[in-house]
This record gives sequence, C-alpha cells and structure tokens, in this order.
Amino acid sequence: MRNLMNKTQGTPSPFSYTPQSVIAGFGVSKVLESGNPDYKEGDLVWGFSKWEEYSLVPSTQILFKIEHTDVPLSYYTGILRMPGITAYGGFFELGTPKKGENVFVSAASGAVGQLVGQFAKLHGCYVIGSAGSKEKVDMLKNKFGFDEGFNYKEEPDLNATLKRYFPEGIDIYFENVGGKTLDAVLLNMRVHGRIPACGMISQYNLTQPEGVTNLAHIIYKRIRMEGFNSADFFHLYPKFLEFVLPHIREEKIVYVEDIAEGLENGPAALVGLFSGRNVGKQVLVVARE
Amino acid sequence: MRNLMNKTQGTPSPFSYTPQSVIAGFGVSKVLESGNPDYKEGDLVWGFSKWEEYSLVPSTQILFKIEHTDVPLSYYTGILRMPGITAYGGFFELGTPKKGENVFVSAASGAVGQLVGQFAKLHGCYVIGSAGSKEKVDMLKNKFGFDEGFNYKEEPDLNATLKRYFPEGIDIYFENVGGKTLDAVLLNMRVHGRIPACGMISQYNLTQPEGVTNLAHIIYKRIRMEGFNSADFFHLYPKFLEFVLPHIREEKIVYVEDIAEGLENGPAALVGLFSGRNVGKQVLVVARE
Repeated sequence: MRNLMNKTQGTPSPFSYTPQSVIAGFGVSKVLESGNPDYKEGDLVWGFSKWEEYSLVPSTQILFKIEHTDVPLSYYTGILRMPGITAYGGFFELGTPKKGENVFVSAASGAVGQLVGQFAKLHGCYVIGSAGSKEKVDMLKNKFGFDEGFNYKEEPDLNATLKRYFPEGIDIYFENVGGKTLDAVLLNMRVHGRIPACGMISQYNLTQPEGVTNLAHIIYKRIRMEGFNSADFFHLYPKFLEFVLPHIREEKIVYVEDIAEGLENGPAALVGLFSGRNVGKQVLVVARE
Repeated sequence: MRNLMNKTQGTPSPFSYTPQSVIAGFGVSKVLESGNPDYKEGDLVWGFSKWEEYSLVPSTQILFKIEHTDVPLSYYTGILRMPGITAYGGFFELGTPKKGENVFVSAASGAVGQLVGQFAKLHGCYVIGSAGSKEKVDMLKNKFGFDEGFNYKEEPDLNATLKRYFPEGIDIYFENVGGKTLDAVLLNMRVHGRIPACGMISQYNLTQPEGVTNLAHIIYKRIRMEGFNSADFFHLYPKFLEFVLPHIREEKIVYVEDIAEGLENGPAALVGLFSGRNVGKQVLVVARE
C-alpha cells in the first residue's frame, strides 16, 4: 500500500493512487451479480479490490476463486496469499536455507516475518526475531516458536546484540526494515550469507534515507542480497498451498492478525504500520456480510 | 592486497600481513631447485608468492604449472588468473547477461573492468564504462570496444549522467567502486537488474565509509546484488581458459597492463591503485630472469 503511493519508485502499477482516488489493495469479496460467466452469485473471490463496500469490477480484471473455506477468509489477504507466498518464496527460494543454519528476521511478528520464523523452525534452523514491543517479542517465542527474540527499541548497540545471539554469525537475514538494522546485520553475516530483501519499512517515509555504511561486507563475506516481491513467486503458488494448508489445519503454523473494523479506521491502520502499532498482519474489514 | 591488510574484515587468509612481515600476492615464478618431485628445475609456476627475489616455498603450498607460454607470463597474474576468472564468473555467472542488455562497468579500465567490458561486447550487450582520466576513457572506446565511456571526475551529477547513457535503465552493473557511484546506479537500475559486486575500492581506505542511501531500490526494482571473489569460480577455470585463450591469440580480447619495475617501486604501485594512478592491470616485476 505504501509503495503504491509513490509516483516515482518501483514498478508502475494500475493501482497506484493519489489524493482523491480510491485506494485498492488485496482483499476478499463476495460476488453479488456478474455479467461474466466465470463468476456467479455467491462466489467468494480474492484479488485487488477497492476499499469500498460495493465495487463494480471490470471484466478485464482477474479475481481468483476461493476454494478452501475451512480457514478464515481473512487468510486470503495474508498467510494464503501475498504475505504467505512472499515469506515462502523469499525464505526458501532466495534464502536457500539448510538445516541448522542461523536465521535472523526483522519485523518478525508482522504479516510476513511471523511466517518466515515458523518456516525456518520447521526447516530445522536456529531463528531469532526482532520486534518493537514486549508483547510482540513474547509472541515470537510463545506463539511462533522462535528460539529467541528481542525488542530492538531497547537495544542501544544492535551490533553487540546480534553478536550475543549469533556468536557464529548469521546465514540468512530476512530483511524487512533496512537502515540501522541492516547496517548492524552486515557486520554479523557469515561468508556466503543470504539476504532476501522483502522490505525496508524504516526508510520509506524518510525524506532523506539513512545511509547504509557497511555495504562493503557484501564483498568481504560474498553475500547475496536480493530484492523481491510476491509476483516473483506466483508460479510456486500451488506448491505453496500444498505445503501450508495441512500445517494450518494441524495448527503447526499459526497466523496472528490485527483486525481493524470499518472503513473509517483504515487510514489509521495503514499509518500505524509505520510506527509498529499493529500486532501481526494488519487486516481492514471494509464490510462484513 | 588491500583486504589482506585488514585484521578484522573478510575471510581470514594465511597471507594476511602486518607491518614488518613479507607481503605475498599472486605471482609468476621459475623453479630453481625442488625437493618435491612434482616440480622440477625450470618449471614456470603461478600462485601465491612473496614479494622477494628468491623464495623458499614449503611443500604444503600449492603452486600451479604454466602450460601455455605463447602469451606474456604476466598474464598469469591477470587475464589468465584471478582478475580473469573474477571478470568471467562475476559477469557470466552472477550477471546472467542476455544479448542486448545494458551493462555499466565502473573502474572500467582496471584489471577486471576492461575484461568485463570486452566480455559484455562479445555477448552482444550495450556497454558503458566509467574511469578516472581522459586517457582511460579513450582506452575504453578505442582499445576495449565499449560503446561509450565517461570520466566520473568530470560528472558532477552521476544520476543525470547515467540517465543520459541509459535512458531505459541498467540491467547489469558490475560493481568495482561502491559509495556515490553505487548510489547513483541504484536509481537507474531496471527491474530484475543484477549487481555482481566485485569491489568497493572507493570505500576501503575510509575510516567512516560513505552511506549508501538508495538501497531501498533493491526492493523497488527487485535487484540481485551479490558479492564474490575469484575463489567462488575456480571450478570454472578449465571452461574459462577454453573461452579466453583463443580470443587472446586472435586478438579479439586485449589486456592492458601497467608494469612497475623493481621491488622498490611496489609500495607506490599498490598505493597508486587507490588514486587511480595505474592504467590497466597493475603488475610489479620483482625480478626478471
């Protein structure tokens, strides 16, 4: 949502928005009426949809039918869709994890981070996460099964903190925040470490981004850092569903959501992401049935 | 040589050096006497050797025999060894170039850069290089066949310069310098661009490295940036020789060296690399036969 607000950055999207235009994001909807034979009344669908109670969707826009309804519908904005495939592709495809490797996840209780940590534990890795409150850190350990977690706001020297948690260094850093955290991580990466770069949320709202000064460690340690988004991994979606659905049903993977009710609470929910007000995946309920 | 001087950075090496110890680097030598049956008098060898006229080499240290002597012996410190395999592996394996793609090379007349440019042209890419003097820029175009080159010292706004040369953006940036150049490049990369990171020579001698502020573009453009050194590509050496030797013999690839004569000129030659005093691969002749 944040990057669609930029006029000059990133991949241009038909869903970029400006003041006065209607915001659109990944959402779940129910078909009320359809002139397209592929969709019929009562179908549940997910896809890009506008933040409004009733939408007229042009037939050129693709919406996807929801087949598995034994899980919460909100999961189709999260674990079962964009954040899920982002965590899965970023961690497994770009992170190329091996059992026993050391994994660090920032924004670890967020929509993507909580899944990366759980995937890494299922894969036999040692996993530490950082988050921005005691409540979130407790959740990392008690709910998502991270080995440890810390509140980055209470660590004045992140380099020292990481050295304490990773005396032998970090193999995979799942990057969600950028800035000072990335700088400290670079000092603590191991040779041939990987940094799947999913987000740099600490930087998006700065007029002048912080400088990352330890980038030469990418060379010293022969690190691979790779930016991506979920679109890069859509081809993995069937494989991903096969992996994740049984784990959800058996409660071996859990997914925490922070649900805001009502369109009028949407702007505050979006803005709250940048101060870390949300706990888990932020969902906005525009309207219930 | 520069990184072997650091005590705390990078892969520890038995060849790291401190004040008063003898410097060692990749060199070419002739065997005068040998207690090891694998080497006999008169053999020409390359490998890590000390900066001294006569060396006693322990039998545990591997030296490699030179088989092809129809090319200058100094090439075994350059195009045929470390810089050669670095350029080859970095460009082809990490850069994954496609015909017609846009390639930018910094330090483009140097030991590695001049080869990357020539490899890229042979592969059908559009190639621009930057260097630090008119003499070097002329060489890019007239000797190495780059499409264009520019003197970065005369470009006050590198972002504008790159936009001029790459109106459609850069697919592959072969990174040799880091700092401000990398920052400007990030603004001009295309989606799914690649940055093989070979060196950041502008940063190594700074007490406080410059900050790279545009790193979020790695996410916006889904860029892959990957540090490496020649050791990552040793397995490609036979394939590389097969590719490069015929091109050298047919003069389809040229290699420019800057040869300093005499051990006493070694320190100045090494230091000169950091102000760009050298033109082409810096070679030090410790002693001729």
